[in-house]
Amino acid sequence: MTSSQPSPQSDAPALRLQHLLGIEGLSRPDIEALLDLSDRYVDLNRRAEKKMSSLRGRTIINLFFEDSTRTRTSFELAGKRLGADVLNMSVGTSSVKKGETLIDTAVTLNAMHPDVLTIRHGDSGAVHLLAQKVNCGVINAGDGSHEHPTQALLDALTIRRRKGDITGLTVAICGDVAHSRVARSNIHLLSIMGARVRIVAPPTLIPAGLDRLGVEIHHDMRTGLADCDIVMMLRLQNERMQASYIPSVREYYKLFGLDHEKLAVAKPDALVMHPGPMNRGVEIDSDVADDIERSLIREQVEMGVAVRMACLEVLAQSQLEPWAKNQ
Amino acid sequence: MTSSQPSPQSDAPALRLQHLLGIEGLSRPDIEALLDLSDRYVDLNRRAEKKMSSLRGRTIINLFFEDSTRTRTSFELAGKRLGADVLNMSVGTSSVKKGETLIDTAVTLNAMHPDVLTIRHGDSGAVHLLAQKVNCGVINAGDGSHEHPTQALLDALTIRRRKGDITGLTVAICGDVAHSRVARSNIHLLSIMGARVRIVAPPTLIPAGLDRLGVEIHHDMRTGLADCDIVMMLRLQNERMQASYIPSVREYYKLFGLDHEKLAVAKPDALVMHPGPMNRGVEIDSDVADDIERSLIREQVEMGVAVRMACLEVLAQSQLEPWAKNQ
Amino acid sequence: MTSSQPSPQSDAPALRLQHLLGIEGLSRPDIEALLDLSDRYVDLNRRAEKKMSSLRGRTIINLFFEDSTRTRTSFELAGKRLGADVLNMSVGTSSVKKGETLIDTAVTLNAMHPDVLTIRHGDSGAVHLLAQKVNCGVINAGDGSHEHPTQALLDALTIRRRKGDITGLTVAICGDVAHSRVARSNIHLLSIMGARVRIVAPPTLIPAGLDRLGVEIHHDMRTGLADCDIVMMLRLQNERMQASYIPSVREYYKLFGLDHEKLAVAKPDALVMHPGPMNRGVEIDSDVADDIERSLIREQVEMGVAVRMACLEVLAQSQLEPWAKNQ
Repeated sequence: MTSSQPSPQSDAPALRLQHLLGIEGLSRPDIEALLDLSDRYVDLNRRAEKKMSSLRGRTIINLFFEDSTRTRTSFELAGKRLGADVLNMSVGTSSVKKGETLIDTAVTLNAMHPDVLTIRHGDSGAVHLLAQKVNCGVINAGDGSHEHPTQALLDALTIRRRKGDITGLTVAICGDVAHSRVARSNIHLLSIMGARVRIVAPPTLIPAGLDRLGVEIHHDMRTGLADCDIVMMLRLQNERMQASYIPSVREYYKLFGLDHEKLAVAKPDALVMHPGPMNRGVEIDSDVADDIERSLIREQVEMGVAVRMACLEVLAQSQLEPWAKNQ
Repeated sequence: MTSSQPSPQSDAPALRLQHLLGIEGLSRPDIEALLDLSDRYVDLNRRAEKKMSSLRGRTIINLFFEDSTRTRTSFELAGKRLGADVLNMSVGTSSVKKGETLIDTAVTLNAMHPDVLTIRHGDSGAVHLLAQKVNCGVINAGDGSHEHPTQALLDALTIRRRKGDITGLTVAICGDVAHSRVARSNIHLLSIMGARVRIVAPPTLIPAGLDRLGVEIHHDMRTGLADCDIVMMLRLQNERMQASYIPSVREYYKLFGLDHEKLAVAKPDALVMHPGPMNRGVEIDSDVADDIERSLIREQVEMGVAVRMACLEVLAQSQLEPWAKNQ
Repeated sequence: MTSSQPSPQSDAPALRLQHLLGIEGLSRPDIEALLDLSDRYVDLNRRAEKKMSSLRGRTIINLFFEDSTRTRTSFELAGKRLGADVLNMSVGTSSVKKGETLIDTAVTLNAMHPDVLTIRHGDSGAVHLLAQKVNCGVINAGDGSHEHPTQALLDALTIRRRKGDITGLTVAICGDVAHSRVARSNIHLLSIMGARVRIVAPPTLIPAGLDRLGVEIHHDMRTGLADCDIVMMLRLQNERMQASYIPSVREYYKLFGLDHEKLAVAKPDALVMHPGPMNRGVEIDSDVADDIERSLIREQVEMGVAVRMACLEVLAQSQLEPWAKNQ
């Protein structure tokens, strides 16, 4: 990086993280430090010259056991803009076919000395397991219906930049909570940051044990969205459902699909979010999704790259510290 | 780039292009400016050290809705040699499966602040549509049977380097014109540059409306190739045809496959081109394809990287200009 | 590379190689030169900043006609850490579908001016054929059951670093030799370096003509492993076998699967290797695979990146020499 560029990493981030496996377990200062660092990368990404050299010579491997072009691209871009070498590995078509175990795959990659592995896997807990077997940093890029911490962080960054503060806001998370790692990570983060969280979903799409997380549960959009500041819609994940649970799309849209009519009970300046990819006409109406006054959906994607740059930088820098190996 | 390297971009290209969606609409000076810049990159690509830094810190995303290893590799190499970060996205296996719309995919990528998107899509017009939805530069890397502008530019560069000038040449474009975006882009370009264009194909493989483009139409290779300077063969795209239109390969080869006998009616120094991948023994005989005196097929591939470097550089530089956002 | 970094390539490697198609044909000094250079890269890969600039501006294309995430990743990482631009091409899903020949694919890539092509192909001899058609360096990344030279080199580096010298060691190569290019390359290399090589396998998994290579053949693990220094297990490649040859996995494990009991007849400090991916419980017991005192399996992967860096560097540098074009 030349001296003419402002340097986000010049005052080294105080935060140290060996892994980022979930929002659960992070403290409020941890989250605030990640968001502050992300904020600086938002500006970098809007410049013509978007390249840093803070991770030059470091290796990041995106190890995806489930397809996700959007998330993989966001991580790849984040790593490359920091100057790292980034490799993509889609598994499921290769070694796994040859009978190699999940752990052997991770241990093999670890022997190539990556600095950070970002891992997506279809099973809840798989990323935690792998993190115990490697000595590089691991970011959970989504595991089953468990956690997706960078999604919650990018949602938080988006909210904070628009509302100034997350504390005290009322956030309604609506739809297919049962299959959603996005919902789970957001519930943790919003609670830690002092927001009031409501879950709005049909009973069949609410997982057991949710009430222990200190959220309000609603089965009706009219009460669930009343006077809220943020409406977070979730994707209806039919592909993860057992046949008997798949709702009728038409019925679902009528009861839980967000349109301007349902949104009217929220605060007049309430904002709408969606982690993507959207099922238009299922969980969200196109008029709402494309409403530039209310919808933050494009901004969420933009914030995603900045948040992942912050996470990758913190993890890569943390690997250098001797304390990290003793965790 | 160190000072010891001659710098193709040191005198900034005068040409400004927000997008490159087709040859139609370009002026003769536009095309000449792109070819002049490409010429300089041909030399760079022949050096051991082939790296530039003119697009350092810029992001190029190759968004391919159709497989094309050859074209994607050419664009990827072009972007990397200019110092850009290049990401590949093959869609059709990922978000599209999850129900995301074409436009949402493009808008999502756009939010990650790429400087240029190169897009290939199976439907004519899809790339134009997407270009209206994003605020980065868009290169059409082939859309349905509509246009493939970088292919026409690389063909033009190849011809110009061998023949000195395109103006006044007679060029025969032969074969499956109906399904060929390559033919369409070449007809536009060659006409703009003052060449005389002949189409040589069976009636079933000539699209309606072709006569409006000011070309001569032939159904016989003997008259079509007579005294021409350049013979451009097209790939027989059986995979795009409805069953009833698929010709017998044997019959097709006999009537329209280029061999030395059919080539004999062209000028003695006539040159042969093919956009690849070739169906040897279908539209072209191996003896002709591999004739180092007559065949420009390998040279076309080489010119492809240089042309794509020129296009990427012009588009990326054009995004910086305030005028670009007002188009 | 800044001056503060020790430079593996500062004293240019004396070795010149146009291609690396197999171990057969290399001399002992060739192998030693490659191992010496690799040794230096082992240290580089253990640093936080792992980037070199010795291949900056060079282009490496990984052309894989067979899937192999592990090998492709190792080559990709090696190329990137040397500063080269690396492109991955998985063929079989693209141009080959469109009817392009193997040779046309290679000739097309060659026209894009890569410096090195690393090629994997399912047919023995395919990589040799392609090397004759291009004028860049070619590394055989595995062809059919013929050769896989970088695997043998990484195995040799692993052994040399642990045992000090390869000469005079007794190495038992065990299992599915019939389908193993790894075995073939290792037999050549170990013989050149003065090791004593034993093959231990059932008669159905020993290829004809093996006795001409000067190895001892055993059909019993007890005699085959007796007093040996190194036990190299091979993956049972059921996917390459004709149905009639597929052994019962249970029977195979009982007779030829390596466990601590069978290993007990080897020298007390005998070390165990496997090229991966492992079939645990088929050719190797998990207790042995994970025995950190005996198993070199993770170290082999680590050495793989270093060896590939050495090979890529030697080949890329050799392309610059005028003599190379006259070979």
